[in-house]
Amino acid sequence: MKAEIITVGTEILLGDIVNTNSQFLAKELASIGVEVYYQETVGDNETRLLNLLEEAFKRSDIVITTGGLGPTNDDITKEIAAKYFNQELVFYSDIWENIKSYFEKLGLKPTENNKKQAYFPKDCIILDNPNGTAPGVILKKENKKIILLPGPPKEMIPMFNNSVKSYLQSLTDYKLISKTLRFIGIGESELEEKLIDIINEQSNPTIALYAKENEVTIRITAKSKDNKKANDLIKSIEDKIKGRVGKYIYGYDNTTLEEIVAKLLVKNNMTIAVSESCTGGMVSSKLIDYPGISQSFMEGCVTYSNEAKMNRLGVKKETLDKYGAVSSETAIEMAVGIAKNLNTNIGLSTTGIAGPGGGTDEKPVGLVYIGIYINGDVKVKKCNFSGSRDKIRNRATNEALNLLRLELLK
Amino acid sequence: MKAEIITVGTEILLGDIVNTNSQFLAKELASIGVEVYYQETVGDNETRLLNLLEEAFKRSDIVITTGGLGPTNDDITKEIAAKYFNQELVFYSDIWENIKSYFEKLGLKPTENNKKQAYFPKDCIILDNPNGTAPGVILKKENKKIILLPGPPKEMIPMFNNSVKSYLQSLTDYKLISKTLRFIGIGESELEEKLIDIINEQSNPTIALYAKENEVTIRITAKSKDNKKANDLIKSIEDKIKGRVGKYIYGYDNTTLEEIVAKLLVKNNMTIAVSESCTGGMVSSKLIDYPGISQSFMEGCVTYSNEAKMNRLGVKKETLDKYGAVSSETAIEMAVGIAKNLNTNIGLSTTGIAGPGGGTDEKPVGLVYIGIYINGDVKVKKCNFSGSRDKIRNRATNEALNLLRLELLK
Repeated sequence: MKAEIITVGTEILLGDIVNTNSQFLAKELASIGVEVYYQETVGDNETRLLNLLEEAFKRSDIVITTGGLGPTNDDITKEIAAKYFNQELVFYSDIWENIKSYFEKLGLKPTENNKKQAYFPKDCIILDNPNGTAPGVILKKENKKIILLPGPPKEMIPMFNNSVKSYLQSLTDYKLISKTLRFIGIGESELEEKLIDIINEQSNPTIALYAKENEVTIRITAKSKDNKKANDLIKSIEDKIKGRVGKYIYGYDNTTLEEIVAKLLVKNNMTIAVSESCTGGMVSSKLIDYPGISQSFMEGCVTYSNEAKMNRLGVKKETLDKYGAVSSETAIEMAVGIAKNLNTNIGLSTTGIAGPGGGTDEKPVGLVYIGIYINGDVKVKKCNFSGSRDKIRNRATNEALNLLRLELLK
Repeated sequence: MKAEIITVGTEILLGDIVNTNSQFLAKELASIGVEVYYQETVGDNETRLLNLLEEAFKRSDIVITTGGLGPTNDDITKEIAAKYFNQELVFYSDIWENIKSYFEKLGLKPTENNKKQAYFPKDCIILDNPNGTAPGVILKKENKKIILLPGPPKEMIPMFNNSVKSYLQSLTDYKLISKTLRFIGIGESELEEKLIDIINEQSNPTIALYAKENEVTIRITAKSKDNKKANDLIKSIEDKIKGRVGKYIYGYDNTTLEEIVAKLLVKNNMTIAVSESCTGGMVSSKLIDYPGISQSFMEGCVTYSNEAKMNRLGVKKETLDKYGAVSSETAIEMAVGIAKNLNTNIGLSTTGIAGPGGGTDEKPVGLVYIGIYINGDVKVKKCNFSGSRDKIRNRATNEALNLLRLELLK
């Protein structure tokens, strides 16, 4: 079953708002096994919308639109869809009563142009809209179906969940089940190279690689009439992938690196203190993003200046003079200093040159040292990142969290 | 001049990510007077992309694509565009050198499949990509032009701003000049209400309101063949707007709140130390985003636990017992404590309930106190935010920076 998503509205066409409707619908359709090969956006324009419907139905069985169901003159999606299907609109007095009572609840009266929202084709499925005045509608002609949904996500999403999803599921037998593997420490092209034969062999499940800001993910999607069979299909591919690159997997599905690390800290009853220079609070901030972290996270400090590094962390003046603030020696003293200071199991530190200025030949922009003290042991990692100040700081933060994760797994 | 935006990628088609590229491009094209009537999304599929290009060029002079320029086998946008224009791809050794040196900077080596990214048509404009391995490209044939941009916004946006915008502007006589006013402390609908007559009256310059995460912006865009005339048009509207809501403007164009605040600190020769609870390092991190901050930013601390607040900042046990960690009293003691501790002009503090748990009737999720000590004076602001943990922490960070800004302007 192939569907196409058309979002109608000048505000999307001009970039005034982000098109979150397409994402929501695309994700939902994928989850119930409806294939989507095209998404389009078009303005509230009769000719262009009509042409687009013609194109869409050449390729797809179902078209789902959002937007253009409102009361004003430039809301024309329903009228155009009816025209395309050669159907006349008639007045539904029961729908008009619903609309009036919706306004009443708000202490308002509908205007004359709201009446437009009570006109529908004779033969259609009207979808109730408890969150607004525009009901949705499903129109059919031969094997073509068009589903018209309102534009505001607060109206569209409940309508999809309450009526459209089950309607679409009733049209097909198949289920699609997905699992996402999250990788860190390996790039997209290297990962693909290592898995290329598995990827090329597969059609069910499918395997898709995505490069995200600081990680790569693989989504395995199986299609079957039977949940168990789909899960077995996924499992067998997942095992193959793990056999080759399992050590780079840090988590599954919608987890994040900071969540994994925070949970490991809490689970292992480990306390941590963080001293940051170039990342300036980003490592602490990520850890604190996890609501249950308070029992593990003792304190963070942002020691950007040499004075702060000495006074707060006990980094030795000689170390700073001899090796500089951006050095493995300083990173280690920062990590040890904060851990000793607060009597924690772990001390984590970052120091680096985030740029844009401040780099030298010997110590270029992007050079970052990450120090970790963990129950008496110390370790330091030297990294060379590239990109903007923001990108370098983000990558350093991620690298620090990953180093911590690897130590916690030992 | 009509353009069409095509985003290429299975991750958008399946709803894994929101299509922010289309919004960015749509907005930018609107701002320079290029008309966009259609936006499309299609997967990495040869036949479908080829068909879409054929459709698009029936309607538009220019097609801009994002995505599908990566090193892997399913990155096919460049290959399809060349095929559509009947052009052969040849190896550019200089581009290959660039790619290799990009990898070198990261301490990595390109893999064999990265070579694909150094192949381009003989006759084209190659667009440099300092933020990734995939250069962009502009292909022309008769009066059709296709502009291929990489998918990741961090690569696509700088490439558009640095090369594509001026290229598109060079195709037309008219210049569009824009100025953005950035507002904080006033909502989108209130701002619109106060300016509605000015907005409705205008056609040149146009006035567009945008609600961002923590702010609202107004973009004034004037169209003229003459720069001076365009600037005069902007100035006259800007003055009208300032007359009504000038006190909410914190900056212009691409500045950020943290940049404004950091510059004010440096300019006023003020030193600052930050103590954060619910924001967990985000305030420090934002300040340190400004490269010149080291002379002003003395230290930050993330005192998430009561112990840390007492030991590190000297918050009194009685204060915590009597008023709680989330109280104006604690916020003040945190701000004063860090400033005294480090002998700075300013101490800035945050303490609040970011959720999802931990709220009570008296102290609900979203309650945040921001404390500021500035040369002997103290002030505290009570805020009630709503939304997710992440959103509350972001809004608290922004509010703290804005409070600091307002104090620095006194």
